[in-house]
Amino acid sequence: MIMTLQDRDKKHLWHPLTQHKLHPDHLVITKAKGALLYDEAGKEYIDGIASWYTCMYGHCNDYITEKLHAQMQSLDLVVFSGFTHKPAIALSEALIKILPANQEKLFFSDNGSTAVDIALKMALQYFANKGQKRGKIIALEGGFHGDTFGAMSVSGLSVYNGAFEDYFIDVERIEVPTKENFKTVKQQFTALLSENNVAAFIYEPLVQGAAAMKMYDAHLLDHLLDIAKQHGVITIADEVMTGFGKTGLNFASEHLENLPDIMCLSKAMTAGTTPMAITSCSQKIYDAFLDGDITKGFFHGHTYTAHPLGCTAALAGIELLQTPETQQNIKQIIQSHSEFNAQIKNHPKVSETRQMGVIYALDLNVKMERYGNLRDKIFKAFMKKGVFLRPLGNTIYILPPYIITQEQLSKIYAVIREVLDEL
Amino acid sequence: MIMTLQDRDKKHLWHPLTQHKLHPDHLVITKAKGALLYDEAGKEYIDGIASWYTCMYGHCNDYITEKLHAQMQSLDLVVFSGFTHKPAIALSEALIKILPANQEKLFFSDNGSTAVDIALKMALQYFANKGQKRGKIIALEGGFHGDTFGAMSVSGLSVYNGAFEDYFIDVERIEVPTKENFKTVKQQFTALLSENNVAAFIYEPLVQGAAAMKMYDAHLLDHLLDIAKQHGVITIADEVMTGFGKTGLNFASEHLENLPDIMCLSKAMTAGTTPMAITSCSQKIYDAFLDGDITKGFFHGHTYTAHPLGCTAALAGIELLQTPETQQNIKQIIQSHSEFNAQIKNHPKVSETRQMGVIYALDLNVKMERYGNLRDKIFKAFMKKGVFLRPLGNTIYILPPYIITQEQLSKIYAVIREVLDEL
Repeated sequence: MIMTLQDRDKKHLWHPLTQHKLHPDHLVITKAKGALLYDEAGKEYIDGIASWYTCMYGHCNDYITEKLHAQMQSLDLVVFSGFTHKPAIALSEALIKILPANQEKLFFSDNGSTAVDIALKMALQYFANKGQKRGKIIALEGGFHGDTFGAMSVSGLSVYNGAFEDYFIDVERIEVPTKENFKTVKQQFTALLSENNVAAFIYEPLVQGAAAMKMYDAHLLDHLLDIAKQHGVITIADEVMTGFGKTGLNFASEHLENLPDIMCLSKAMTAGTTPMAITSCSQKIYDAFLDGDITKGFFHGHTYTAHPLGCTAALAGIELLQTPETQQNIKQIIQSHSEFNAQIKNHPKVSETRQMGVIYALDLNVKMERYGNLRDKIFKAFMKKGVFLRPLGNTIYILPPYIITQEQLSKIYAVIREVLDEL
Repeated sequence: MIMTLQDRDKKHLWHPLTQHKLHPDHLVITKAKGALLYDEAGKEYIDGIASWYTCMYGHCNDYITEKLHAQMQSLDLVVFSGFTHKPAIALSEALIKILPANQEKLFFSDNGSTAVDIALKMALQYFANKGQKRGKIIALEGGFHGDTFGAMSVSGLSVYNGAFEDYFIDVERIEVPTKENFKTVKQQFTALLSENNVAAFIYEPLVQGAAAMKMYDAHLLDHLLDIAKQHGVITIADEVMTGFGKTGLNFASEHLENLPDIMCLSKAMTAGTTPMAITSCSQKIYDAFLDGDITKGFFHGHTYTAHPLGCTAALAGIELLQTPETQQNIKQIIQSHSEFNAQIKNHPKVSETRQMGVIYALDLNVKMERYGNLRDKIFKAFMKKGVFLRPLGNTIYILPPYIITQEQLSKIYAVIREVLDEL
């Protein structure tokens, strides 16, 4: 008997973020193009979250594919210690041009988690190099920054991290600021910083992705960043999710007055082709490592650091992001979301809606567990109707690729309405 | 004035493992093919370390390039939670076929460091899921397992990690076993395990890469693995460097009687094209996470997990590894190294030589710092003569791509001899 691909998947593959006992079946996707995914039967699904916010210029984008094909024929990889190459240099110039004005240096790695581990190490060693003992990190409750030990430490504690909590770095958490709690949060934040042992404050600017696209106020965050600067604390903006146009501007940090000292970038940077991350920083951070003493250097490295394929993909992605077409599409998506919101926000099943750029989220007034049965039922209802959305608990959110058509967007909205009506 | 690429590199790029004050210049590599790298002037260099042990089938390998080009046109990326795809399934079957017999499940990530963080988390949660409190890890002195916080913790302490040591997980180190120290090492190891709080023992089997290709005895390691098994301690073989043919067999663990519970794979797996890592494990490990209780699942994930491009590259790499041509080439390189060794081992500048598979190392009887001036002088002498080797302290080692020609190998040997004669 010939085994199906789905059965063959079960033999040897251990999927991420999955309890296989409860979720044994994985749908086989055979191809993708533009905003569409296709399964084995040829059924198509609109990719409503751009495959974890990566494929913003469309799946299997021809322009990027041809750039990568050319790169693979000329230079695949070279050790990035002692050597350099044109794709990295060209990317550095293009990226610095669109990053907030104070970002000057780029350190490469392979995913958001390592970008965060690197940011934390930069912050800790920054003070160590200056002979100051500052070892504490402040993070926001409910934040998510990745799954390596450093990144886990600064992520909001979850029941799923119980086996590892003994090994976390020294982190204090403050609530996400709101108008209601701000006085308390500000007091707590200031008190923590007054101990002079805080190295860094890490935050997802304006939108906490894994916390079900929780959005918060730019002015309140700016106020906290003011206080951090006054205390000489390094600010780390984790823009792994928000970067490259998601909030309507190239980076969420552009909505703020205070520029971050360090930024973490990944996901959409390589447009869904190959893993790559960058931890960028200001000249001030870099200069603290520049010394005749070799041990003050930053001795971190991954083998595929700045691999030419990733640099080429990122450069092509930045080119596509800056085209008038993409910028017009982003505006159009923002406008469409806003019109959809006006229609859906008073739906009896909806308790709250929110939008930032192309990110749109609505909460159901139904109690649901993050990975529970009702969540699964809603996920399946979307899929049956040809739309891939990935509810987080009782939150349904859309983060479409920038190339999505108006018809495809309208179908997503219609399917959400249908599923809500059927609840 | 037009800036050179080398000057443009300096503006925004922060290179890994580099003190930029002491090493400001990075050589621009413009293309690579087979065993050769080319700089801007068209000068060619034999890549004597396969660009950090990755490009084993040659730079810009046509077979791999065409497979990747086809993949990029059909499926770039899909979320690997809830979905699966043929490249991951095909890779899983091909890899399981060549891995040690007890390896059954594959968990993907993006580099060796994350593969190690995942292995450590699997080991810790394995015991937590069974209600046992085991939190200590044992590692070998001088081992290197990566640069994220977990991986750093188990790596041999270095002066360069000083700023982070307060935040490491709970690790005890034992000496690499030798005939001379074995009685003591065995006693210490047994004493540590007797406390019943050790979760895992992590080791680079047979060759410690970053410790300048330090090699050690399979029987002695097997003896330690026996003891670990008797105490129910999880064994983790870090084969990021040794995997995929380097030691003459597909994996270094095949030289041992005791199979590891968990293995870490990366580097050569994707043949120098795109970052990808796999943490593989036995059914016993996987089963400890399979439960009706969702929180016993392994809630770790990276966005580009099992990206189709990486799976396609790894599958093509395994195909190439298994061809009679590659296997014959590996045998030929082993034989050539051995003949070179007979000629060079009594050179007055050589204090020790060693070989394991295609890995050959010789130590100079000269005191040198790991990143010191004499090391740099030797590196430059090799480059001037058209050979890229990367001495580690006073160790010169060769780890050539499998497709290297006999002429290219002979040139590496001749250049090493010349440089030793000139010392």
